[in-house]
Amino acid sequence: MLALAQQAKSASRALARLSPDEKNLCLRAMAAALENEAPAIQAANALDLAAGTASGLSAALLDRLKLDGKRIAGMARGLREVADLPDPVGRILAERTRPNGLQLQKISTPIGVVVIIYESRPNVTADAASLCFKSGNATILRGGKEALHSNQAIAQIMLAAARAALPTFPENAIQVVATTDRDAIRELLSLTAYVDLCMPRGGEGLIRAVAECSKVPVIKHYKGVCHVYVDAAADFKMAEEIVLNAKCQRPGVCNALETLLVDRAIAPDFLPAMAKLLHARNVELRVDPAAAAHLSAGHPLNKPATEDDWYAEYLDLILSVRLVDGVQGAIDHINHYGSAHSDSIITRDEARARQFLAEVDSAAVYWNASTRFTDGGEFGMGAEIGISTDKIGARGPMGLDELTTYKWLGIGTGQVRA
Amino acid sequence: MLALAQQAKSASRALARLSPDEKNLCLRAMAAALENEAPAIQAANALDLAAGTASGLSAALLDRLKLDGKRIAGMARGLREVADLPDPVGRILAERTRPNGLQLQKISTPIGVVVIIYESRPNVTADAASLCFKSGNATILRGGKEALHSNQAIAQIMLAAARAALPTFPENAIQVVATTDRDAIRELLSLTAYVDLCMPRGGEGLIRAVAECSKVPVIKHYKGVCHVYVDAAADFKMAEEIVLNAKCQRPGVCNALETLLVDRAIAPDFLPAMAKLLHARNVELRVDPAAAAHLSAGHPLNKPATEDDWYAEYLDLILSVRLVDGVQGAIDHINHYGSAHSDSIITRDEARARQFLAEVDSAAVYWNASTRFTDGGEFGMGAEIGISTDKIGARGPMGLDELTTYKWLGIGTGQVRA
Repeated sequence: MLALAQQAKSASRALARLSPDEKNLCLRAMAAALENEAPAIQAANALDLAAGTASGLSAALLDRLKLDGKRIAGMARGLREVADLPDPVGRILAERTRPNGLQLQKISTPIGVVVIIYESRPNVTADAASLCFKSGNATILRGGKEALHSNQAIAQIMLAAARAALPTFPENAIQVVATTDRDAIRELLSLTAYVDLCMPRGGEGLIRAVAECSKVPVIKHYKGVCHVYVDAAADFKMAEEIVLNAKCQRPGVCNALETLLVDRAIAPDFLPAMAKLLHARNVELRVDPAAAAHLSAGHPLNKPATEDDWYAEYLDLILSVRLVDGVQGAIDHINHYGSAHSDSIITRDEARARQFLAEVDSAAVYWNASTRFTDGGEFGMGAEIGISTDKIGARGPMGLDELTTYKWLGIGTGQVRA
Repeated sequence: MLALAQQAKSASRALARLSPDEKNLCLRAMAAALENEAPAIQAANALDLAAGTASGLSAALLDRLKLDGKRIAGMARGLREVADLPDPVGRILAERTRPNGLQLQKISTPIGVVVIIYESRPNVTADAASLCFKSGNATILRGGKEALHSNQAIAQIMLAAARAALPTFPENAIQVVATTDRDAIRELLSLTAYVDLCMPRGGEGLIRAVAECSKVPVIKHYKGVCHVYVDAAADFKMAEEIVLNAKCQRPGVCNALETLLVDRAIAPDFLPAMAKLLHARNVELRVDPAAAAHLSAGHPLNKPATEDDWYAEYLDLILSVRLVDGVQGAIDHINHYGSAHSDSIITRDEARARQFLAEVDSAAVYWNASTRFTDGGEFGMGAEIGISTDKIGARGPMGLDELTTYKWLGIGTGQVRA
């Protein structure tokens, strides 16, 4: 692990010297190689699929693991899209000249060495490696053990293509960790002299285990307990459309709606029709007693909410529903039970909307829009390596810019301090 | 500790609701109160000084601990300067409208709850609390146990003044931890649901102990092993002035020079005269064998360097000196042995300067200027809570802006995701 981390640090120094054109040349060569060598990737993937089948992986997990031609083409397309994005390194973030003539520039730079720990989807190998590479970072990739052959094949093909395209391509810019030993990962995440950042992607258990053991900074989100608050001054039709979209359009993702908060004052007018629409989409409601009073007790999709429901990320066609006392009640509920991911207020009242936007302490806060927009692509970042609910470092969707840090340059003519 | 952290989180919600004018009103009231109640502060300080004398604190530590009228006036002036600075919250960092009409704004927000752990100087209590307050953060202050009476008196006077000036001032915006129990601090730094950031300030031992035990993000610097590299194309007179300034102007601070690197090609021309100037200021040189060949062996201030010297932060009139092979040799030395704080190249050659600026992986990198400029005041930030050599979160001097994070606001007209 020490050698691996040292090699990555050394590669990161060399990466920082590559020009944008050189990086993009490599990315396009990698994309072409993934397409040309699709049979080799599929052969490696077949080994993983066979082992997964033998060890009894579920059909859903086997599907995630599988790399068919379409998914390989998708990886290649992703690499070309990253090549087309503006280079995130060397942006001037601030600039000033001091009274003594010293010119200061705050410029974006690569972070250095980034460890990505993820679960079963092997396409993450290409996505994460390409975003880190474009932002000048050396990557250490630790995917799920069930995808090891696939991940190694993808990385080896990308590396060979980059080396062939660019003789100065640093050998260890992208490394796949073969070990699945937890102690080895713990050791890697203790090497603060060489590793600058860890980004775990996956279920809450994986992320908590990484955050617990890591001595290097971790950027992460545990879960997305996203809220829509329907205010007394809401356009009910808009509220219905946003709630249905946020809950049903893709319920298994982190920016999907999990808890509906309704202003107590409008519950009798809003809730019965909303519940009917949700039931029609087969959404189970977990309702607090005050909300239940406005719903038909006997409906099989209405169930009582417990305290645990307010913390729950269902990732399924289940929605918890609670009545609150106006916008302050909604803010208090969200800041207490939420996961600081994405929350929305539906209202025509600007003062209440501004209060909600200001006081909800989440990475993305919406007014009259679906929570489902929290996404690098939807935010115009072009690509996304993940979403952060942390506050130190990147917050919200993380694209190329969020994979950089900065440094200060001071350009003088002999200035000394008085 | 749990109650303390929960109170701080609750206060941080209330702080986020204060307007810039309300915050500045409080800061000016706090400043006036520190001046008016100087006798009470000095009475509390006398208890600490008496206990310190009884327990055998050194004269230097007792001097650091002492609060005379001038130092109290300095704290009050600092608070007024913070009040005069622009509000760091609510800055629009990025703004765009998506093709679907969704307006996105990336705006600066308070971080939340910040723990500051520091050593003996009680003026840090006022400085840190005021910067955190102005940036909308609730602070938990844990100073040195030898300054506890002084720190509590300062905080109580500031809080009472703010409450009198502003009835909505949140009671627990500034809290001083009375305990000096290490387990209690460890517990506080495990409360990731309530504490958002820890900033330890002090010696490397303190900082390592905090970083080792903390589960909340830590922004810090361990030490400042700063370098000046004198290139073959340097203006020797400029190089001499910068080296003397960086080493001698205030040797006990983190941005002072610790290692002088000289291009091997100019060592015979540059080094003897430079050494003479340094010896005249009583600077002891720890030199590598190649540099020693150009210096008088018998001089009592010339000593051989060991490997440890390249890592050393002397904070004293001692300088390690090494010959390197051009700018690449300097970059490699700095990236290997340095502390990523502040490093400078002296040269007339722009290409070499650009390479140094790009490849030295430090928070501040200078061309033809002293390393001593790495400072919030010198950078025009107005005030500084510390200097970070970390890469996640703030890097380099940290002023008010660096005590904020950001969130994304999405303002729509009913947008849903397709």
